[in-house]
Amino acid sequence: MRIPGLIDPHVHMREPGGEHKEDWSTGTASALAGGVTMVLAMPNTKPPVTDRKTLEATLSLAGSKARCDFAQFIGAGAGNRETAASLAPHTAGLKMYLDSTYGDLKLDNMEDWFIHFQNWPASSPLCVHAEGPSLAAAILLAEVTNRPVHLCHISLRSEIMLIRAAKARGIPVTCEVSPHHLFLNCDDIPSISPGRSEVRPRLASRDDVQALWDNLDCIDCFATDHAPHTPGEKDSDNPPPGFPGLESALPLYLTAMSQGRLTLDDILARCVINPRHIFHLPEQPDTFVEIDPAARWTFDAAKSHTRSGWSPFDGFTLTGRIESVTLRGKVVYKNGEILAEPGSGHNIRSELK
Amino acid sequence: MRIPGLIDPHVHMREPGGEHKEDWSTGTASALAGGVTMVLAMPNTKPPVTDRKTLEATLSLAGSKARCDFAQFIGAGAGNRETAASLAPHTAGLKMYLDSTYGDLKLDNMEDWFIHFQNWPASSPLCVHAEGPSLAAAILLAEVTNRPVHLCHISLRSEIMLIRAAKARGIPVTCEVSPHHLFLNCDDIPSISPGRSEVRPRLASRDDVQALWDNLDCIDCFATDHAPHTPGEKDSDNPPPGFPGLESALPLYLTAMSQGRLTLDDILARCVINPRHIFHLPEQPDTFVEIDPAARWTFDAAKSHTRSGWSPFDGFTLTGRIESVTLRGKVVYKNGEILAEPGSGHNIRSELK
Repeated sequence: MRIPGLIDPHVHMREPGGEHKEDWSTGTASALAGGVTMVLAMPNTKPPVTDRKTLEATLSLAGSKARCDFAQFIGAGAGNRETAASLAPHTAGLKMYLDSTYGDLKLDNMEDWFIHFQNWPASSPLCVHAEGPSLAAAILLAEVTNRPVHLCHISLRSEIMLIRAAKARGIPVTCEVSPHHLFLNCDDIPSISPGRSEVRPRLASRDDVQALWDNLDCIDCFATDHAPHTPGEKDSDNPPPGFPGLESALPLYLTAMSQGRLTLDDILARCVINPRHIFHLPEQPDTFVEIDPAARWTFDAAKSHTRSGWSPFDGFTLTGRIESVTLRGKVVYKNGEILAEPGSGHNIRSELK
Repeated sequence: MRIPGLIDPHVHMREPGGEHKEDWSTGTASALAGGVTMVLAMPNTKPPVTDRKTLEATLSLAGSKARCDFAQFIGAGAGNRETAASLAPHTAGLKMYLDSTYGDLKLDNMEDWFIHFQNWPASSPLCVHAEGPSLAAAILLAEVTNRPVHLCHISLRSEIMLIRAAKARGIPVTCEVSPHHLFLNCDDIPSISPGRSEVRPRLASRDDVQALWDNLDCIDCFATDHAPHTPGEKDSDNPPPGFPGLESALPLYLTAMSQGRLTLDDILARCVINPRHIFHLPEQPDTFVEIDPAARWTFDAAKSHTRSGWSPFDGFTLTGRIESVTLRGKVVYKNGEILAEPGSGHNIRSELK
């Protein structure tokens, strides 16, 4: 069965600064192996992407190493609230960290939030990592500044309730959910191990997970929040939050399809059509994924292409497998092998000169 | 000069459970000495007021001891989101604690916030203690549930910016500011002492204070948040947050009037007219305060009527003094003496039988 190449609007390529976890070459190989032909990369690298110089440096690395198409987010800081907007055409959008996660990009002052919402062009995507009250604040800012906001990795019943209510009032919000918040819950922490289970937002309760499934019509996108760290880091005394996710996501959705919990239209709306619309992404001509929706297999993290080399879904029995991926007419992945060269991916935004 | 009796929509009478700090008799004496003839009392007593039994018990104490008119808030808890509404006619309104302060009434789950906003009658006041993102969340809940919310003791530039923007979008929000956030700032902490300076929201920066003054047109009410604790408690290793405020508030406003920073209309709008409207309060017939707006004097906390016996404004030189207070035709305060008997105050809401 042939489906369009997937778009993942929320990945961490870890380069620059975290190349022992992942880089643009391994991260985009992981994308292709997961049927993803376009990724939007988050800015919490080391250094973070917050200005022309860091954006230029990251795009240069991405341009020479990426194997799938891409765009790069810029991070909102206290220091760039007046200047970030000038870079908007060259970015995937603006990413604002309103709550704590990996990296140092958290914005503590609500005045900064407001100014960034006011200054970032309404025609360019604005995404927030925001949980609980901060999520509500982001929705309010969308309303009072009259600009769209995309809410990353929603995980709680209270959050999806609020998003449903906000959409009903006509507030311009969209949201994404990550596969680990759909297919794992906090009862899985002992079997994954506490350190490896660290992720932001945290794995939620069964009730929260059920609320996401019950409100699927309010969820615009699926996004992996692919956030690789090494097994050694995850097993350390201070485990960083995040899971790799690119290679397990589509097989998990196809498994849910085999169980009647998702339709193919549900998947394609959230992995192709809605992200393209929300993030103003171009179509990729002659780009598609061949899947065997009936194949039963066991996910083996040791065979994955991400440098991180582990997965919370290791050992899961899945129904539905990716056989090959074609990007702009070229077979870039087939039967477990990456056939795309580093640097063959395109930056889908306007070049920064 | 004669002005109407003031309304303070935010006081802590501390009874039941904190009678060594204040009780209905001393707290309402303090109100009268400050020109306040009606107080709305907060529910974070011991036990907190959250159901029929605790409301009944508190109203019974208030009815026998209060020297000015009053109403009692009920507190929103996780356990009363379905039942509190039935008590609305007998309360000042619903008080929701979305951030930490004195007492145990904080609501941690945003789902509880939402349900309380949905269930509490739109015709009865709903007040929130909410700071920063929680404040934004409360404003969003007002929008999505289409019901008014009153925002207690605003203190930050970012907060008043957001309130201005929300009002401009037609969201039904009102707000109050406390005198200590208008007349003190964090630079005053050393001279007051760190323990005595503890208050929630905390004393803010000079810039935040200036933002409140610059946006006076967005501030609907002045409310003391009269929150008495003993000097011993305030000077302890674990000082509880809160200031007494009833006796210093009007003189501070009159002092600002003498300096041209407030007009008498500014004061009366925020201490009488707007609170009456927002909280649906009855007029008090033949009730007024005689003031000498030119009298210069020094505030002496030792002479105050609150049991707490101290003030962050102790020793302040003030311009404008309260000479006498008349409540429903009877002189209840004159030249430093309380003339009203305990139990002479009326519950202005419908009696709970």
